[in-house]
Amino acid sequence: MAEERGSTVRLRIDLAYDGGAFYGWARQPRLRTVQGELERALHMVLRVPDGDADEPLRLTVAGRTDTGVHAAHQVCHLDVGEPTLERCVGHMAVPAVEALRRRLSRALPPDIAIHGIAPAPEGFDARFSALERTYVYRISDAARPVDPRTRGFVLALGDRLDVEAMNAAAAMTLGLHDFGSFATPNPGGTTIREVKHARWTRIPDAPLVPAAESRGEGYATPAAESGLLCFTIVADAFARNMVRSLVNACVKVGQGRRTVEWFAGKMAEPLREGSTGPIAPQGLTLEHVAYPPDDGLAARAEAIRARRTL
Amino acid sequence: MAEERGSTVRLRIDLAYDGGAFYGWARQPRLRTVQGELERALHMVLRVPDGDADEPLRLTVAGRTDTGVHAAHQVCHLDVGEPTLERCVGHMAVPAVEALRRRLSRALPPDIAIHGIAPAPEGFDARFSALERTYVYRISDAARPVDPRTRGFVLALGDRLDVEAMNAAAAMTLGLHDFGSFATPNPGGTTIREVKHARWTRIPDAPLVPAAESRGEGYATPAAESGLLCFTIVADAFARNMVRSLVNACVKVGQGRRTVEWFAGKMAEPLREGSTGPIAPQGLTLEHVAYPPDDGLAARAEAIRARRTL
Repeated sequence: MAEERGSTVRLRIDLAYDGGAFYGWARQPRLRTVQGELERALHMVLRVPDGDADEPLRLTVAGRTDTGVHAAHQVCHLDVGEPTLERCVGHMAVPAVEALRRRLSRALPPDIAIHGIAPAPEGFDARFSALERTYVYRISDAARPVDPRTRGFVLALGDRLDVEAMNAAAAMTLGLHDFGSFATPNPGGTTIREVKHARWTRIPDAPLVPAAESRGEGYATPAAESGLLCFTIVADAFARNMVRSLVNACVKVGQGRRTVEWFAGKMAEPLREGSTGPIAPQGLTLEHVAYPPDDGLAARAEAIRARRTL
Repeated sequence: MAEERGSTVRLRIDLAYDGGAFYGWARQPRLRTVQGELERALHMVLRVPDGDADEPLRLTVAGRTDTGVHAAHQVCHLDVGEPTLERCVGHMAVPAVEALRRRLSRALPPDIAIHGIAPAPEGFDARFSALERTYVYRISDAARPVDPRTRGFVLALGDRLDVEAMNAAAAMTLGLHDFGSFATPNPGGTTIREVKHARWTRIPDAPLVPAAESRGEGYATPAAESGLLCFTIVADAFARNMVRSLVNACVKVGQGRRTVEWFAGKMAEPLREGSTGPIAPQGLTLEHVAYPPDDGLAARAEAIRARRTL
């Protein structure tokens, strides 16, 4: 009933998830998705019937992750009527947003964690205000023994990869390029993106516990990510399948199955074909979404909306 | 057929596993266990029928982990007839031990990883030669946001724990003690053990990629274990349930539900009762088993065998 709703508040929700058991972020009929689970839980704790045409609880997300891709730090927003939000306080002696955070956390499965809920600043849009996204792809190659505990977010490969060659390829992605060889365009969309950072790093062996805290002699437990090969990529935004396709191409170069020149050709002539498809999703994590300071949010969102609708 | 067997070789097998889907190490009828899976795979790749009374392939392990407990570095040994071992070379142009390693790795499920197989030095016994075992228990408390990707090997607790109080308790375990309050004795066995190191540490926030490799400004992805509270304990050996029971008691102290004096009383009077049961298994990992230099292996095994059968 529209009369009851009064004014609307926009909430910023920060969260993380293990993507292993989800068909990606985006809600799909009859498939388990992160958006689907979150919206189901929101309808439950806010006591709004799912399918209420007057008050649909729909999330807008910063990075629509694919099937099997994880998020260590994802951001979305929700517009909700103030009376609806207030209703979820119930018998809790806390502000409505904190009550929502607690109830939502309890209603969610263990593969989704809410890191924070707060009223969004003026002009905030989880998708269009975002300045840049950071993704990391983690690989366990032959340089280190496989750790089965981390196999849900690390891809194991039997080869030993040539990091230098992979970085020669990765360096070519820096700047504004058409990533048409490495991405599936949205209908009417472009595959032009600006990559700000792209680098493969062998994570050094490091003890889990700092030396000062451990005993002077004997065995030191290594950090779980010691020896992994990690690809960090930062861009304003990513086209569909772009990170996993770039990773797959770099890995082929690192294995010696393709040359750096082949990669250069793919960058020079943006054309989607079989050799540049995406690598397995489980190694990929959305690590961060950055936003401008509060007074730049609205301007950023307007600029992005204008550019993407050209 | 005993005539065919000839001499026997002892193999040392180093491995790791995600314990989440196993009913512990020890073989049990109709339950999925690490030993059961390994012995099944060994029978298959060495082409010895399971149940062959002449040549049972039975593993001896350094640390019998409980249901749900992981191993980043476990050690076991296998005695196998040389002709049987040689048979597994097949068409491979590699030594028999390397052929076994490759075939075994392929035959195992993804939650077990073989790190190495080698002929054991003279006098080696995976269980009785071991000098000490290192376990780590990982907790994500309220001091940091939960990372759902690591929930298989990190226990999430809603409280913020008092590390100083927990370390006051942990320090009391150092040295030779009867851990009867914190362990289930084996029939005819003792709960006296020597703890060499026991300490809770808050893992400092550290970037996954060293600063020199990352871009100068902007977001730095944290290492996945940043901010965790980790308990490292090293002892000659552990009694059944001992690590998880000590962790549970320390956590109760850290939550303020029990006092350090209560812990001291449990150390002083070794008596098993309800308040000192084990904590959930998923946070626990066997991280390392240490052995003496090759020329001390047999002496160590004899000394331990003598002591444990007193």
